[in-house]
Amino acid sequence: MSSVSEREQRVLGIIETARGKRAKFRDERITMAHGAGGKATRSLVEGLLAPAFGIKSLDDAATIGELALTTDAFVVKPLRFPGGSIGELAVNGTVNDLAMGGAKPLALTLSLILEEGLGSDVLRAEVDAIARAATQAGVRIVGGDTKVVERGHADGMYITTTGLGQRDQRAQFQPARPGDRILLSGPIAAHGTAIMLARGEFDLDSDEIVSDTRSLWPAVDAILGLGAVRRLRDATRGGVASVLNELARDDGVAMLIQESAVPVAPAVAGACELLGIDPMYVANEGVFLAIVEPGFVAPGFVDIGEVKTDPPGMVLVATSFGGKRVLDELVGDPLPRIC
Amino acid sequence: MSSVSEREQRVLGIIETARGKRAKFRDERITMAHGAGGKATRSLVEGLLAPAFGIKSLDDAATIGELALTTDAFVVKPLRFPGGSIGELAVNGTVNDLAMGGAKPLALTLSLILEEGLGSDVLRAEVDAIARAATQAGVRIVGGDTKVVERGHADGMYITTTGLGQRDQRAQFQPARPGDRILLSGPIAAHGTAIMLARGEFDLDSDEIVSDTRSLWPAVDAILGLGAVRRLRDATRGGVASVLNELARDDGVAMLIQESAVPVAPAVAGACELLGIDPMYVANEGVFLAIVEPGFVAPGFVDIGEVKTDPPGMVLVATSFGGKRVLDELVGDPLPRIC
Repeated sequence: MSSVSEREQRVLGIIETARGKRAKFRDERITMAHGAGGKATRSLVEGLLAPAFGIKSLDDAATIGELALTTDAFVVKPLRFPGGSIGELAVNGTVNDLAMGGAKPLALTLSLILEEGLGSDVLRAEVDAIARAATQAGVRIVGGDTKVVERGHADGMYITTTGLGQRDQRAQFQPARPGDRILLSGPIAAHGTAIMLARGEFDLDSDEIVSDTRSLWPAVDAILGLGAVRRLRDATRGGVASVLNELARDDGVAMLIQESAVPVAPAVAGACELLGIDPMYVANEGVFLAIVEPGFVAPGFVDIGEVKTDPPGMVLVATSFGGKRVLDELVGDPLPRIC
Repeated sequence: MSSVSEREQRVLGIIETARGKRAKFRDERITMAHGAGGKATRSLVEGLLAPAFGIKSLDDAATIGELALTTDAFVVKPLRFPGGSIGELAVNGTVNDLAMGGAKPLALTLSLILEEGLGSDVLRAEVDAIARAATQAGVRIVGGDTKVVERGHADGMYITTTGLGQRDQRAQFQPARPGDRILLSGPIAAHGTAIMLARGEFDLDSDEIVSDTRSLWPAVDAILGLGAVRRLRDATRGGVASVLNELARDDGVAMLIQESAVPVAPAVAGACELLGIDPMYVANEGVFLAIVEPGFVAPGFVDIGEVKTDPPGMVLVATSFGGKRVLDELVGDPLPRIC
């Protein structure tokens, strides 16, 4: 694959300098962007939360001996959407955080914040969805807590799940290296698109667009058995673009993605085009990226690009027209409340 | 101490039959009472959540080998109150759940649900409070998640903390037995009263009434070293009355409490009297009950009563006037959103 031009390197070099710094949190108020998974979220986490607690990152599964521990809050609206619901998401999302940390999910705890007036049938449906998703993922719900807030002070329910997992000895993650391949576990952008359509804000409808929410542990279990996996990351908030940016920044490498290789279902691609949204930034709940050593073959995964040396910290996309563009980090807030 | 009269036993026997059954969840909608820690909460947990997940109780710390895992959601309003704040509460509440399970707190995860428009200074103050409380409690914050919901869809912030602890070998809990003593770790009702006054809904003010939020592990650590502790339970939502009822019901014993022995600070007692609230039902954040074997002496604890045989599942209070009354489970919702 062709390298970046000198001009591009200069231009990108300036951006790269800014990127090298730890994000600062200077905003006066919390905005929706702080929850969208992009730059604002990073400034909140890196600039305020992580330093206050003396940790590098707040989002990844923490390692405690042979155990992994991770927490996720779910505030999705609407509660039910084609292909899933908040309850299912709350199980799979946390199970997947563990899987991405190379840990086999063992147990979950559940915190429910319920809105006064919530229909018991709605609650019952989510409790069933949670129980079913937990069974499918092979994980036990071992405890929890329930609180009720006054009418209007929540959207039906908010759920936080915490997952405890057993670290898999085959998971020996290392920084991505130039030459490594970038694999994707499946077609992207289905979840976020399904949620946006389910909200009914757009005059658009499709039976074919359903959330991809699922447990990723079986796929992780399989790929860990095949060889040297350097990195795993699920592409939730902020989509594939945000995850690639995180990985490039964390490991000081460049990522070159072949746009035409990235799988997007035709119905999803069509909806994104009509909505004017790049599928690379749309959230997924059943897709992950694996950075693997050169020559690695993994059935069922799609090779979408290569790790490069320059420009460090950047993600570039080689378009079908032979050009190259920067796939930048998400700044604003195009897709709130999708997980 | 005198036993219950035959008449009382007959009357109570009827109630006891109803108590023996597992609570059913039949309400059409969620009400504030489902979050208040009394009968409605029990019906939700025992009638819906616990059976769906195949567990006996949802609230206690779960045991996984030598580890304990527990989750708590915090939705307190206002966020700051005399003696503490939601951030401090979120650390101590979960640390205390672990302590009550006989586990030394090791690590916490943190889930923040923030309201759009929340002042960064407010968030910063709570992040500092969390960090400080964690340091004081000797526990690390190892990970977390942050979500933002639209303006008006939360009260500033909701916090869920999950705690991982190491089980203490000295904690070998057993059912309470007739003859056991009931110990209390300190004066009751300060937290709930402080919150109620901080809301400003009552024309009442007192500098002396401050929340008792604190880590209970040091006190638990001390009492576990003294001898046979059968049960530990912190008296949060629903207060001492609710905890006593839970213990009596779970272990099939009666509890006879000497009303005059229960410590309540004069300012708190005065405020409760003016508000028409029984301090026994008011939430605490730094008080626990220990059921211990007869003859057990624990400096700093107050002996408030004795475990009895009859009537099983009931809590009776011997009043200062020589009478006896039933201290029933909380039914309604006198004290919402206090933890």
